[in-house]
Amino acid sequence: MDTSAPQPAGHIAVEGHAGVLVARIDGGPHALFDAAIAKQLKELVDRADRDPDIHAVVFTGTHPDRFLSHSDVRWLQKGGTGFPPINTRLARLVARTARLINRLPGVRTLAGMTRLKTLLELDSFHATFLKMNASGTIFIAALNGSAFAVGAELAWACDLRIMADGDFVLGLSEVLLALTPGGGGSQRLPRLIGTQQALIAVLEGRPFTPAEALALGAVDEVVPQDQVLARSIERAEYLSLRAKKSLGAIKRSIYFGSSLSLEQGLQFEHAEFLVRDQSQEAQRRMLEYIATTDAIGELPLLDRETYARALSAGRIGGVAHRQTGTR
Amino acid sequence: MDTSAPQPAGHIAVEGHAGVLVARIDGGPHALFDAAIAKQLKELVDRADRDPDIHAVVFTGTHPDRFLSHSDVRWLQKGGTGFPPINTRLARLVARTARLINRLPGVRTLAGMTRLKTLLELDSFHATFLKMNASGTIFIAALNGSAFAVGAELAWACDLRIMADGDFVLGLSEVLLALTPGGGGSQRLPRLIGTQQALIAVLEGRPFTPAEALALGAVDEVVPQDQVLARSIERAEYLSLRAKKSLGAIKRSIYFGSSLSLEQGLQFEHAEFLVRDQSQEAQRRMLEYIATTDAIGELPLLDRETYARALSAGRIGGVAHRQTGTR
Amino acid sequence: MDTSAPQPAGHIAVEGHAGVLVARIDGGPHALFDAAIAKQLKELVDRADRDPDIHAVVFTGTHPDRFLSHSDVRWLQKGGTGFPPINTRLARLVARTARLINRLPGVRTLAGMTRLKTLLELDSFHATFLKMNASGTIFIAALNGSAFAVGAELAWACDLRIMADGDFVLGLSEVLLALTPGGGGSQRLPRLIGTQQALIAVLEGRPFTPAEALALGAVDEVVPQDQVLARSIERAEYLSLRAKKSLGAIKRSIYFGSSLSLEQGLQFEHAEFLVRDQSQEAQRRMLEYIATTDAIGELPLLDRETYARALSAGRIGGVAHRQTGTR
Repeated sequence: MDTSAPQPAGHIAVEGHAGVLVARIDGGPHALFDAAIAKQLKELVDRADRDPDIHAVVFTGTHPDRFLSHSDVRWLQKGGTGFPPINTRLARLVARTARLINRLPGVRTLAGMTRLKTLLELDSFHATFLKMNASGTIFIAALNGSAFAVGAELAWACDLRIMADGDFVLGLSEVLLALTPGGGGSQRLPRLIGTQQALIAVLEGRPFTPAEALALGAVDEVVPQDQVLARSIERAEYLSLRAKKSLGAIKRSIYFGSSLSLEQGLQFEHAEFLVRDQSQEAQRRMLEYIATTDAIGELPLLDRETYARALSAGRIGGVAHRQTGTR
Repeated sequence: MDTSAPQPAGHIAVEGHAGVLVARIDGGPHALFDAAIAKQLKELVDRADRDPDIHAVVFTGTHPDRFLSHSDVRWLQKGGTGFPPINTRLARLVARTARLINRLPGVRTLAGMTRLKTLLELDSFHATFLKMNASGTIFIAALNGSAFAVGAELAWACDLRIMADGDFVLGLSEVLLALTPGGGGSQRLPRLIGTQQALIAVLEGRPFTPAEALALGAVDEVVPQDQVLARSIERAEYLSLRAKKSLGAIKRSIYFGSSLSLEQGLQFEHAEFLVRDQSQEAQRRMLEYIATTDAIGELPLLDRETYARALSAGRIGGVAHRQTGTR
Repeated sequence: MDTSAPQPAGHIAVEGHAGVLVARIDGGPHALFDAAIAKQLKELVDRADRDPDIHAVVFTGTHPDRFLSHSDVRWLQKGGTGFPPINTRLARLVARTARLINRLPGVRTLAGMTRLKTLLELDSFHATFLKMNASGTIFIAALNGSAFAVGAELAWACDLRIMADGDFVLGLSEVLLALTPGGGGSQRLPRLIGTQQALIAVLEGRPFTPAEALALGAVDEVVPQDQVLARSIERAEYLSLRAKKSLGAIKRSIYFGSSLSLEQGLQFEHAEFLVRDQSQEAQRRMLEYIATTDAIGELPLLDRETYARALSAGRIGGVAHRQTGTR
């Protein structure tokens, strides 16, 4: 048994237009998530987060009926070797160290050459998923087919999930390999569908059909497979008409703030509000709102037609165009 | 464009009888939430929390089809000026400072005369909403019409929401002004309806119809507009027959405790239990419960008719009357 | 009125076969939860957690139509006496001290002879419920009938609840005695059914019917009373075919991790993953998975029939047999 046979390295092909990028994930004939894909994903997320003209990224799979099967098991398996046996308490220290090292580029290069390599790679893609949650860029999973384990975890790290109807499944299978989820699935799934439904699904290792995923909230929409990408792009374009910095503040307030104690969460939200409130962009819109109110004698937001136009334009009043990330 | 034209100051008219107060919020022709309303709201919540004979407060709007439109935008806009540009990390420090200053009355008066004034006012109404969550007084939003932004946030800071059926909406519109929610909406809405439904609604800036709000759990009941107030008072009276100090302990355990880690939350609950367990009121009722059990040979709570009477009376056994806040 | 009349002490009868234990709780004619049951429950949970050959425990009541009525009120009432009146802040210190003392066996024996006895007993059963959440053993409540207060709280500390259809109820009645939940109910119910539904039910003191409990998620299944135990055992056997250490890692990640901030929760999950990833059991299964993939040219998890067999066997590939707790 040759467990180290080289796999063809995965690849993400990115095409973009008008602020919405489509990222086609090619995990080879088995549609596997590997270190090459993790690295390209990180680079793409970094770029999309930083560039004020990139407003959304839609992920889809190149395989005809899979979004992403799961991780390259060789990668996972090697990540579990090379250490002396560790218990949970020690593992927590190791995880913390990995996170620290990932923040120090010089140290990282050095450590990358040691047996910590796989561990650091694994930690690095957790940081990528977290950055997706923190970013003003909208991330959408166009689930063209099935996804297990890290495939499902990538989808749940996105802001929206559109799944193909058909003979596909989405779920966490780790228990069947005597593992436990490691890419955020045990954290993001309960926050999406509630702890009990998540608990039972993960304990059983049983994935959801598209209808089950929709009913529970594990995906947002189910459409025919040939409409998954178009519908995802449509949603991306609609959301990305809103101010990128507001989208980021809202995402952070909800993903991070609402996972804190109520009092800390309110403080977190308040800080995000203060930054937005003093931004040039919001100041300009508020002054314009006040002027319009004075001119028409009514609050624009309370006028049905004005509101409908604002939703389509992504802003109340002014010219409807995609906003760049000015403050 | 005169952005500082004086608005008529808002007002809250309070009428009360038998432990249930009705607070009619008059935000002028536009139904706006302003500094005057924030101040009166704080005074009302302080009084209701402190007075053992006030068991519930029902909020409603005086506008024919609005509960509260949103904040006075002049107020928000000015709150965002007068500071050097700050980033999120700095804003968190400012928010913490504002909270600290609000706790020191002398310092507050002084600071109130500086450019921190609006910021402190904004922080003060967050503290009011938190006090509503911590109080043994029941707060109910009688949503006679639409509410955006802080209007929705006030409703979500209440314990129960009864909304008028009809052409009304409830939601967070901040993103359309390049803002982010600042009155707790991004914290309390996800805790009410789940993170994903909240995320999408706030990112879009799209409000809920009464039917949508009910289906998601953003309101508790939808009734014809002319029954909103009566139904809210009915619910207030029913709940306020229970011991005020127990209601406070339950509210704190659920709002605050269940937002902590499971272990900390259990410790929080345990502390609230110990205080109630040794109260004269609970001791008296437990002794009476034991005596009744011995006398009738059955547990009163396991007898269907006794239980139904207890729910109506707000207590098991004894005389049915509204409890004062004795311990 | 003799409030100290001795009650017959409660008892838990345990019978076991093939890794699944059935624990029949006998709380006497009133089906009460008392100190004797709390003690036996602790011993049972400790044993089931520790023994790699015990995979699940099913709890049921011996009373014909009750699972557990509620606590022995004499016990609760005495727990609230013997202290000087304490406020919430002080109570939190007391609770923390009780937890600390429970960790020091010698001190505990000493303290057990003082007036802290009841308080320590109460704290001890909280620790038992937490240990159920942390354990790789699956706990199932076979709700043969009604349960109030600690009866409901024990059910909610289990991983799964199967309730008898019929004229039974499940809920928290504490407010009617001027108390507040003290056995975890105000923490676990909101995490099961959401804060708002939990808040209203606990404020009212109104229990759920089986249909209401099922619709809200307060129980997982409702079946005819004479099938409750058999169905619970069936679920226990199905789940316990999975690796016990994986079940524990998943339970901890979801119960504890997902109650932390998102970032801390992800770190918690990551630590659990690292421990599982390096376990002999998972390493063996991953190597086997890789070998099978190479042999058949397809990922076993992506083959429908293989997956169905894996769910029935509790593992992908290999021989279907209940796993012992090897690492």
